[in-house]
Amino acid sequence: MSGVAIAINAAISGAAYCMTVRMIPRFREMFIKANLFGNDLCKKDKPQVPESFGVLIGCVFLVSLFLFIPIPFAFDEAAATDAITGGKPDTFPHDKFVELIAALLSICCMIFLGFADDVLDLRWRHKLLLPTIATLPLLMVYYVNYNSTTVIMPNFARNLIGTSLNIGALYYVFMGMLAVFCTNAINILAGINGLEVGQSFIIAGSILVFNAIELLLGHQVDSHIFSIYFMLPFLATTLALWKFNKYPSQVFVGDTYCYFAGMTFAVVGILGHFSKTLLLFFLPQILNFLYSTPQLFHFVPCPRHRLPKYDSKTDLLHISTTEFRLEDLNAPGRLMVTVLRNLRLISWHTKADGVVRTNNFTLINFVLVVFGPVHERVVTQMLMGFQVLCTLIALTIRYPLANYFYAKT
Amino acid sequence: MSGVAIAINAAISGAAYCMTVRMIPRFREMFIKANLFGNDLCKKDKPQVPESFGVLIGCVFLVSLFLFIPIPFAFDEAAATDAITGGKPDTFPHDKFVELIAALLSICCMIFLGFADDVLDLRWRHKLLLPTIATLPLLMVYYVNYNSTTVIMPNFARNLIGTSLNIGALYYVFMGMLAVFCTNAINILAGINGLEVGQSFIIAGSILVFNAIELLLGHQVDSHIFSIYFMLPFLATTLALWKFNKYPSQVFVGDTYCYFAGMTFAVVGILGHFSKTLLLFFLPQILNFLYSTPQLFHFVPCPRHRLPKYDSKTDLLHISTTEFRLEDLNAPGRLMVTVLRNLRLISWHTKADGVVRTNNFTLINFVLVVFGPVHERVVTQMLMGFQVLCTLIALTIRYPLANYFYAKT
Ligand SMILES: [Mg+2]
Ligand SMILES: [Mg+2]
Repeated sequence: MSGVAIAINAAISGAAYCMTVRMIPRFREMFIKANLFGNDLCKKDKPQVPESFGVLIGCVFLVSLFLFIPIPFAFDEAAATDAITGGKPDTFPHDKFVELIAALLSICCMIFLGFADDVLDLRWRHKLLLPTIATLPLLMVYYVNYNSTTVIMPNFARNLIGTSLNIGALYYVFMGMLAVFCTNAINILAGINGLEVGQSFIIAGSILVFNAIELLLGHQVDSHIFSIYFMLPFLATTLALWKFNKYPSQVFVGDTYCYFAGMTFAVVGILGHFSKTLLLFFLPQILNFLYSTPQLFHFVPCPRHRLPKYDSKTDLLHISTTEFRLEDLNAPGRLMVTVLRNLRLISWHTKADGVVRTNNFTLINFVLVVFGPVHERVVTQMLMGFQVLCTLIALTIRYPLANYFYAKT
Repeated sequence: MSGVAIAINAAISGAAYCMTVRMIPRFREMFIKANLFGNDLCKKDKPQVPESFGVLIGCVFLVSLFLFIPIPFAFDEAAATDAITGGKPDTFPHDKFVELIAALLSICCMIFLGFADDVLDLRWRHKLLLPTIATLPLLMVYYVNYNSTTVIMPNFARNLIGTSLNIGALYYVFMGMLAVFCTNAINILAGINGLEVGQSFIIAGSILVFNAIELLLGHQVDSHIFSIYFMLPFLATTLALWKFNKYPSQVFVGDTYCYFAGMTFAVVGILGHFSKTLLLFFLPQILNFLYSTPQLFHFVPCPRHRLPKYDSKTDLLHISTTEFRLEDLNAPGRLMVTVLRNLRLISWHTKADGVVRTNNFTLINFVLVVFGPVHERVVTQMLMGFQVLCTLIALTIRYPLANYFYAKT
């Protein structure tokens, strides 16, 4: 009975929550001593805050799931050991078993590489390389287990292409890129207290709601139970981290956490076969990425940090800015800023000498452009509210609209 | 054909060697900047040496084996996908597949925890906890896959107990302890240039020779091929590390490497079903551990570091010492030092005030007690020579004597 397995998973998650809440304060000193700390620039006294606590909750998450490994098979009649031969029955879900282990391998590898990034401060190109490395075991297991690279086409494309298309190696490229996207998308929508953890919590919650709906509808039961096994301990440890990372942060989470969260989402999306729905839950991250492209790809000058500016007199956050001469930008850069300006998506201030000053292109700064100076806690709340809104939009798209596009004809 | 798989594994290992040799010098600066360095106390100018390079070669090892995952199944006829149904045949070696992934999970987890130890400088009790955590996935997979906890008894015990005995949970305790032992045993026979890497190289080489002998004898072919898959890339990356870690060290390896090496040995010992033979290859480490017990368990005062003392005038190493009053030791402590003294296994110097000065109880110091002041490079060579000698002894015990004890009657 998977019900029992989920109940045990929930119990383990509860224990993981309690343990994490106890452990985090005890490790603060140790992290600072190890030179893992940053200064919180959006506070009056710029306090020293220990960094990279993602590594701690990642460890608790891993141990929880290590202990859980035998449970789904202990309560599955199809997996019961043959009492006479002592061997596995033909019905033993070998593919589920190896997927569970491979998923853990990918997540463990990602936490490790994220921590290495935090400690060694790797370069930008590594941010693309590391998630690719960590997805390798998953892709290899997928290759050995299924190697099914067929995608179902939406209605409007069926006349052109047919109902399904085998995209071969491209499917693996897509899965690898999904992991790269999920990890980095969370990493670039970050920088104010609680934002990384808050958005991850809401995404995980959205996935859990989606899994529950699908289970109620009786769709692909195994895949969604599999996803729940990962989401419950993830939510539990993330909630514990939130207690200490919310405004005012007592600990920072580091790249480790963003990588860990992104990879966990990518893994359940890939192995649960709902990667398209997963991307819908990443709507704010996608918008932030698109909005950031002019700076990320250096069409517009990008300062080292794009965090909002803190005003210690009012305790509010203001937009941070970048400056350029319109004529110094190349053609695509000029086009981008002109479009953004006309859509009123960026602030625009032309100085006497012709230099243009705009906000940095991040969702956080956009909130400040629209609402004016806002308190740090409120910015996080607004962005989390937007994330919840996007989940509702995503579920609306997923259910009524998907029925339209993928209707059985 | 496993032959082809081994050849591909060897080719990947060769590439891994070349990559590691190129990468190590490029990462030296980055490690020092990340505060990961130590001073080499056994040199005239006490140079700053980057530390924890085990993490780099661990990563290369993991990537090599990630890429290798599908190979054994691509060249195995029993694993060929059914061309008609697209499904796996009944003969697909699911157990081997999941063991490969679980082994990688345990090793990846251990490298990660080892690196966390290096960075955060965890406490002594964690040194026992971390390898236990990292073995969990392996034990869980073993539990789901086999749960065979029967050990074959040697002849002399058969009259008492029977030919085999099911030791149940104890078997899992044994496997967990094997991992704890292997990781820590390498970690405490360490401290002079090249020693950790040198001993690990010889142990890995010994395992490879043993695997080859067993393959020639046709014993448990699958297990030994499995072991070879891990040992070849391990030897390749270790050899690359040796180039930079041998006297005079340009990089240090850190706890990360000792954990990585120990866990890799434990994994192949457990899954290859030759854990007893594996322990034979650890003879010098076992001797070092036994010799160290009086200090490790604080029967005799144990200084923070037990490294030999460096004499900058002669460039030679001298014993480092500990001091105590015989009457201050408790009864077991007094017994231990008296036995060691009478067996002439420790130096003994009674000062005028009755305080006794002996060498610190490590194999490195023992070499210096026997041979007097020796150059650092030579101490490593002597200990590596001893390791090779022990391998020969181990193989002698394993073959002629095991036949005697476990003869088919
Ligand atoms: Mg970083
Ligand atoms: Mg340490």
